[in-house]
This record gives sequence, C-alpha cells and structure tokens, in this order.
Amino acid sequence: MSRIAYVSGAYVPHRRAAVHIEDRGYQFADGVYEVIAVVGGHLVDEEPHLRRLHRSLGELRIPLPIGDAALRIVIREVVRRNGVDTGIVYLQVTRGAAPREHAFPKAAKPALIVTSRATRPPDPRLGDDGIAVITIPDIRWKRCDIKSIALVSNVLGKQQAREAGAYEAWQVDRDGWITEGTSTNAWIVTEDATVVTRAADNAILNGVTRRAVFDIIAREGYRLVERPFTVVEAKAAREAFLTSTTADLLPVVRIDGVPVADGKPGPLSRKLRAAYLAHAAAAA
Amino acid sequence: MSRIAYVSGAYVPHRRAAVHIEDRGYQFADGVYEVIAVVGGHLVDEEPHLRRLHRSLGELRIPLPIGDAALRIVIREVVRRNGVDTGIVYLQVTRGAAPREHAFPKAAKPALIVTSRATRPPDPRLGDDGIAVITIPDIRWKRCDIKSIALVSNVLGKQQAREAGAYEAWQVDRDGWITEGTSTNAWIVTEDATVVTRAADNAILNGVTRRAVFDIIAREGYRLVERPFTVVEAKAAREAFLTSTTADLLPVVRIDGVPVADGKPGPLSRKLRAAYLAHAAAAA
Repeated sequence: MSRIAYVSGAYVPHRRAAVHIEDRGYQFADGVYEVIAVVGGHLVDEEPHLRRLHRSLGELRIPLPIGDAALRIVIREVVRRNGVDTGIVYLQVTRGAAPREHAFPKAAKPALIVTSRATRPPDPRLGDDGIAVITIPDIRWKRCDIKSIALVSNVLGKQQAREAGAYEAWQVDRDGWITEGTSTNAWIVTEDATVVTRAADNAILNGVTRRAVFDIIAREGYRLVERPFTVVEAKAAREAFLTSTTADLLPVVRIDGVPVADGKPGPLSRKLRAAYLAHAAAAA
Repeated sequence: MSRIAYVSGAYVPHRRAAVHIEDRGYQFADGVYEVIAVVGGHLVDEEPHLRRLHRSLGELRIPLPIGDAALRIVIREVVRRNGVDTGIVYLQVTRGAAPREHAFPKAAKPALIVTSRATRPPDPRLGDDGIAVITIPDIRWKRCDIKSIALVSNVLGKQQAREAGAYEAWQVDRDGWITEGTSTNAWIVTEDATVVTRAADNAILNGVTRRAVFDIIAREGYRLVERPFTVVEAKAAREAFLTSTTADLLPVVRIDGVPVADGKPGPLSRKLRAAYLAHAAAAA
C-alpha cells in the first residue's frame, strides 16, 4: 500500500506531496500542528487535540481552511487510506503561500496537511527500564503554549539529548525551573508521593497526554500539585517521568547521569503508565 | 517574463516551485536564509551575506548542499533569468526532507532554494519623512544571531506594528533593553552625537547593513558605541534610525507615538542614509 497524504483539498501520493516554496510555513514557521495517536484504527483524545489546534490557530489568527466536521472526515480518511492500525496522524495548518513579507498577507489561503503512518508500538523496554534525560538551557520563544512549527530549538535540544545517550532533554528557564522536554512534558513525584508538574503557562505546551494523566490521578485519588520544580529537586525526587502523545508515559531513571532514587522506574510512574496505556487502548 | 526559482538543482517556473511536505524547513523551521539586495543587476555585499549564511548553517550543523562557487553561479543565474535590475535575491537552506522526528535525520539531503524578484525602490518618502516604530516585548528564542526561518514571533511583531500604523516593532528584552526590530537593527544617536547600537550578541542578528554602516561611520569619523539602550533612552535620543537589506537606512521619527527630538529625520541619520545608498549603488 503506497502512502497517501492530504494536502489542501487533495489526497496525493505521499512521495509527491508538496507545498509551494512561498508557503509561510516554509519561510516563516507561520503555522501550527498536532499529532494524534491511533490505536486499533481509532483516534486517541481527538477532542482535546482539535480544541488545542483551534487555540493555537486563534493565537496566530490563522483560520482553519475547512470546517471541523470536514476536518474529522479528512483525518479518518487519511488513517483509512494508509491502513494505519497503530500509529499517528499528523496535522499541520499554515497561513498559506504569499509573496514573502513578514506581516500577515491580505490574500493567502491557509494550507492544511494531514498525514498518517504506522509506528511500531514504542519499545516496551523504554517503559520497563525507564529512560535518561539531560538538562539544557531553555532557549525557546516565550509562547511555547502555542504548538507552532517554529521548532528549531527543540530540534537542537533533542539532538543534544541523543548525542548524550539520553532520550530527552529537559529545558531549564533563566530562573532555574524546568519547563518541559523538547517534545514531552516533565513530571516528578516528591517524597510524600505528590505528583508535581509545571502549571500550563506560556512556557510549556499544555499536553493532551498531560491532561489525560491529570484525569487518571484524580480518578485514582493520588495527590497532584501544578508548580515548577528545579533540576536539584528533580534529581532528588522519589520518581520522575515524562509524557507525550508518542512517548505515552515513560519513567525517567537518570537525570544528567544521576540516578533518580534507585535508578529504577518508580511504582507510581508504573501505575500511571499502565493506566494511561489502558486509557489509550480504550479508544479502540 | 515568467518568474523562475532554483529548487535543489533545478530551475523551475516559480508558480510550480515546491518542496516536500516533510522538508524539515516546513515541519521544524530547521533551516536558515539570507536576503541580498540587487542594484543595477549586481549583488550588494554578497561576501558578508554568504559568510553569515555559512555561520548560520554551521550553528545548526546543516551542510550547504553545493559548493560556494556553484552557489554564486546559481544566484547570478536566478537574477539573470528573472531579469532583476533592482530587487532582492532570497536564499533558503533547510536540513531537507525526512520522516518527521525531532533529532537530526541520518540521511536527509539539504534543500537549497534561490529566488529573485524586482522590488520597486523603497518609497523615498520613508527616507525623507522617517518612519514610526512601536516597542513590544521580545518573545523570540535566545539565538537570534542565527538567521533561522523560525520567524513566527517576528511575523506577530511586524503585524502588531502594521496594525498600530507603524513601520516596525522594536523588541525589548526582559531587562528593558531594546534588542532589534522584527526584521531590522535598531540605532539611536545620543545628545553628544554618538551613534549607539546593541553589540552583536545572541539576542540580535548581526546585520550586513549594520556592518556596512559601521564602515561608513569609521570612514566619516563619527563616534560609534556598541551597547544596549532602553526605550526611555531611545525616546529621549537626538535621533533614531533602523537598518536592513531591504529597508536600507530609515530615520525613526516616532517611538510609541512619541516624537524623536523634533519628529523629523535627524541630520546624522540623513547623512548615513545617503552614504549607505551610495555604497549600495556602488555595487552596480
């Protein structure tokens, strides 16, 4: 089966799926995106992803070029045409093509791209053994609550993690607080078994998986506090973990080479991971 | 004459010039660019633009996909095929197309885009009457010395300026210092006729026009100090101006609605503007 992409109204072979060189997504990173997990052919947490897409578009004042009902149909059609059972859907909306000038163009038609691909389920060893993170300065812009495609700093951070043999880089703001990973939210569990993650301000993306884990915490009766935490606190934490649509929930067992507690995934992280995987599987 | 663009090895009609939807420039803003002025069919300050292109690429570890000699030929060919006498050349290099993943792909081939278009000479009234700027918080990333295509914050700032009836927005960092405009460098002239502009740190782009004006200042025997300045100091300055490849040098006569001095272009700004225009014309 050859891959199919949706590009602004047409279903086209993926290898030929293209946009104009003056698409503002290409020249200005003037656009936003979403990644939705597919489990058993069904979308996981579609509603909050689409709500966040609308929020990001609203902040950049880019109109969604098709209606919401049509978008839902396109997403499903792309999943179906690509025969994806376990994988992801990727949506990208940009302000469209226009002669290059910074200010909003008068007459651009926003572009909408939808792709989908099968992904192997994430390596279960990552969940069983946990992963390592490094910490790096947060050099990103100040509106990380907008899921924009201006991701070059995230690219550099993730690459730095890879070269350090780590799965992710936790970014640290000028005041010493951890904001989030380059594509994941950051969490710790304190000595009194309170789950801690930064409140959703302009410095982090309000992750859909983050909020799904909030629901699980509330349902299961665990304690949650939304507040920032430092690198020192994270290294001394009882547990640590990260979340994202593609990573699910992964225990963090090393931070900058320092083991978190005994260097093994903590019990609460394991419970929350199992509960989140059950939540995602329930979409099917 | 129909417009022609160079896209990674081929000269193609501009309207059909396209890149793959998985080009990392489109999905991650993982690329850099340059804009070079064309005057009388000749390139203005080509050398420093190409040096800066190499520097930006080096910081992102993206190899230039063709040799420097070949690049110079491509640039000239694009100018020639588009019959541009007065205008610009736009160069963009991205890490190329690869399945979407934040870290550097193993096998992407960098993409190179070169376009050129005639631009009317900037409206001379802007130089004669001067322009207005507003000031806004600098929300950009912390590596503005890299001329990356991650420009969404610059887009928002420029749009804010336009809607305020201003030509440009001067961005102000967390400590109250003006960094630069969204596509121009910022300058003032103090009471003792010293020209002041921020030193080229990670917070600003080291403008090619900025450095050409440095040369003029040195040649003409004016005083220059590279240091940051605040909004208050700018509003109280004797003169203010901005520089860029496409704006040349424009006097700033209002800042947030407050007239700079008597609200007319200052004598030093006018002299520097004339000298810069002569420098650009000398390329022809």
